[in-house]
Amino acid sequence: MLNFKKIAMETNFASKAKYRSNSNKATKITVAKGDGIGPEIMEATLNILKSAGANIEPEFIELGERVYLSGNSAGIEKEAWEVINRNKVILKAPITTPQGKGYKSLNVTLRKSLGLFANVRPVTALHPYVQTHFPEMDVVIIRENEEDLYAGIEHQQTQDVVQCLKLITRPGCEKIVRYAFEYAKAYGREKVTCMVKDNIMKLTDGLFHQVFKEISEEYPNIKSESQIIDIGSARLAANPENYDVIVTSNLYGDIISDIAAEIAGSVGMAGSANIGTNVAMFEAIHGSAPDISGKDMANPSGLLNAAVSMLAHIGDAATADKVKNAWLTTIEEGYHTADIYKEGQSVKKVGTQEFAEEVINRLGKEPSMLNKSKLIEGAGTITLPTYEPKNQIKTLVGVDVFIDWKGSNPDELGAKLSELGAFKMQLKMITNRGMKVFPNGLKETYCTDHWRCRFVAYEALKQVDKVVYLPIEYEQLLALLSKLHEQEFDVIKTENLYEFDGKRGFSLGQGE
Amino acid sequence: MLNFKKIAMETNFASKAKYRSNSNKATKITVAKGDGIGPEIMEATLNILKSAGANIEPEFIELGERVYLSGNSAGIEKEAWEVINRNKVILKAPITTPQGKGYKSLNVTLRKSLGLFANVRPVTALHPYVQTHFPEMDVVIIRENEEDLYAGIEHQQTQDVVQCLKLITRPGCEKIVRYAFEYAKAYGREKVTCMVKDNIMKLTDGLFHQVFKEISEEYPNIKSESQIIDIGSARLAANPENYDVIVTSNLYGDIISDIAAEIAGSVGMAGSANIGTNVAMFEAIHGSAPDISGKDMANPSGLLNAAVSMLAHIGDAATADKVKNAWLTTIEEGYHTADIYKEGQSVKKVGTQEFAEEVINRLGKEPSMLNKSKLIEGAGTITLPTYEPKNQIKTLVGVDVFIDWKGSNPDELGAKLSELGAFKMQLKMITNRGMKVFPNGLKETYCTDHWRCRFVAYEALKQVDKVVYLPIEYEQLLALLSKLHEQEFDVIKTENLYEFDGKRGFSLGQGE
Repeated sequence: MLNFKKIAMETNFASKAKYRSNSNKATKITVAKGDGIGPEIMEATLNILKSAGANIEPEFIELGERVYLSGNSAGIEKEAWEVINRNKVILKAPITTPQGKGYKSLNVTLRKSLGLFANVRPVTALHPYVQTHFPEMDVVIIRENEEDLYAGIEHQQTQDVVQCLKLITRPGCEKIVRYAFEYAKAYGREKVTCMVKDNIMKLTDGLFHQVFKEISEEYPNIKSESQIIDIGSARLAANPENYDVIVTSNLYGDIISDIAAEIAGSVGMAGSANIGTNVAMFEAIHGSAPDISGKDMANPSGLLNAAVSMLAHIGDAATADKVKNAWLTTIEEGYHTADIYKEGQSVKKVGTQEFAEEVINRLGKEPSMLNKSKLIEGAGTITLPTYEPKNQIKTLVGVDVFIDWKGSNPDELGAKLSELGAFKMQLKMITNRGMKVFPNGLKETYCTDHWRCRFVAYEALKQVDKVVYLPIEYEQLLALLSKLHEQEFDVIKTENLYEFDGKRGFSLGQGE
Repeated sequence: MLNFKKIAMETNFASKAKYRSNSNKATKITVAKGDGIGPEIMEATLNILKSAGANIEPEFIELGERVYLSGNSAGIEKEAWEVINRNKVILKAPITTPQGKGYKSLNVTLRKSLGLFANVRPVTALHPYVQTHFPEMDVVIIRENEEDLYAGIEHQQTQDVVQCLKLITRPGCEKIVRYAFEYAKAYGREKVTCMVKDNIMKLTDGLFHQVFKEISEEYPNIKSESQIIDIGSARLAANPENYDVIVTSNLYGDIISDIAAEIAGSVGMAGSANIGTNVAMFEAIHGSAPDISGKDMANPSGLLNAAVSMLAHIGDAATADKVKNAWLTTIEEGYHTADIYKEGQSVKKVGTQEFAEEVINRLGKEPSMLNKSKLIEGAGTITLPTYEPKNQIKTLVGVDVFIDWKGSNPDELGAKLSELGAFKMQLKMITNRGMKVFPNGLKETYCTDHWRCRFVAYEALKQVDKVVYLPIEYEQLLALLSKLHEQEFDVIKTENLYEFDGKRGFSLGQGE
């Protein structure tokens, strides 16, 4: 039976108190039936949950195609938001986003609006029932879901050059990394692997890795390791059975979670969770498949697996295991929907609702070939502490001024900028696409019309062999910008240079 | 016999004229023997090339460990640069970068300094001699090598937030995409697949995709397709035999080229090329393996495959095929170095030099099981046109001002900034990590101390239902920055907003 536990993941709620009401009260779950095959697979899933004795009470909301077509470009109405925020847990079937007309992706809207910072995707092989090269694979990808390049902040700055900002934040890293370790602890997982590219991106990916190292020390009973994303992705693709839990940033996670699902052969059968501070949403990873909609053909397994994660999340791992084991037994005993039916191996081809019946018939049974579900009791009580910023002293020591310049000789630009000699600031270097081209560039370096010109305090340059940056005033920076404009330089953007607690907070140019 | 052809890849050299000297003159090749197993595998490789009749003349340079340890932090001396620039083609064995002491990666230095814009990595399965799940795999990854996030421009801007710039340029995209199609044409490949993430990064990855679409039309005989990088990586990992040539940007290419090599099982046997405007460099993808150095144990296949690509690149595909087919035959007939030796399958375990002898003994033979090498004559004559910028009218229409603010209520910040009301510019919105939080944000959105505040011309806001951006003067922007500073806002960076030929050159906020 389900113990109702308030999902105490509020980061602005530091105490680890767990709120429990009496155990007879059902947990209200917001349910969106979705479009296409959505309603059929939701019906099958809810029937199974009910028969398993999950003490939940569905509250239905309207989302998706019908709402879009009624003129709501977000695909969700105000009343639905209220239900979502009240119940905190969503089980969502796939929805259809109509083409064109500026409809927004409801998934992105829900994820961003509700602060669903973690995407959690367990991927397990079902060999030999689902074909894969990796029968032992059993990995969980935990992907940061809110920041990184997916903040979508892009600017075209010159004819030639477009830029996207990759933003990595300390609270974002702490939340996702801690969630990964807490998940590992709650679900009896043994190892967490971090994947980033901090040999190249020393500050951004370096921050993620640094936070990983700090937090891993708080979990001495869980193994931790770190891999460079290119090598890590390659090893995951070649030997996924060597991984347990993987935590990574948004873009890398997008790539490797798709790799994992694809090589397990389980794109049609996997569920995922989107975990937020207050709200969590559970769904299948596949789409609404309108071509087979209404035919009682669809495989409800993806949504059912999402529902299993949901039960564990709300603290009812016992029912979650019961459902999962019945489902594994059904797969194993050869009752297969059309998508995985194989002559000779399958015993019977079943429709959506008959598949659900077969799962219900096996509630209480455990698989004999496939690995038994091992969600452990109490899995739902993941609590994250409030983020505590470490107060640092920030000192302005210079500015990178980006200039649109159509010339081709960096020495010419360098000479002009060096002559400015104003406001006790001086040109330190120029780079083009990150490569130092002044002073002492190489003529082989190809240059675009996008020049990054670094200015620091004049005195800083006088040091020999070692750069000591000296503080500047913001007024100096403003005066420099005025002067550049006066001299007809086309300044397209600026990036201030700071030290934090005396430590350089910016990268050097390649070749600097 | 080799026809010497000047590598006419100069982008500032639009005509497709091919320079040939008389056919008896050897092509000078710069050769770096490297560290660790480098000298042994280079000796084996050069012996094979010589026996095959490749009309090349090696000129040796010193690179790597010994140069580093002599006090040169770059690992390369001035004389070596001169030889490299004179000969234009480099065959390089693996080198060792000593740990610590601020030594710079010689690979990065060479790549960036010489403008080696394309990394080309052919990956072919050698089933059953090298174990793989994908016996039919035969793919070439062409990776942009100079820009993207690897420009390494990073700034910490607040206590919480660090940023890396992803820079994508039109000339960079045109060069790499055109090179991919020219490569496909020169080597008889049938399809080029583009992989980017332009559903999220509409301007940067959108530019890459747009250039791909434009250039693909110039090659009607080569199939082209485009995939989102997450799905593309997953499909490559699961079904690599469906791919032929893949072209992508730097980070994605880093990831997928490692995936391809790993799942082919050929990390120890693959070569790669780094192609520049004037210079090209060929090398194995593995390292210097100091643990087996000097033992005549190393497999020279990676460097030999790089040398095969080099021969094709300089226009001698006939000799390239001859060497490659002899090598394939040697592998097939079971003469294996220790790394791939397998009891029962291999015929004889051979050392580095004996392996080379076995290859030499088979020059003129062709494999019967493995696919015959199909490099085609004239492969070396890839010529890229000069980049022609499309002149566009750039109009300044606003500025994104990024503010370090320790408050938590976006409405408070929004109200303060709205009151500024100066210089005919007005606050349009505020985002935090890309998500719109003002006006009309959602209280669930987690906010860091990093606020992007968009200012546009006052009149622009008056339009109903549709934003028409109006030009502003740079002086307005400067005055705004002064005013913000005066009112004690901590401005950490700016991004100007431009229209190019009247088209918006910046993304909207999520939820804007």
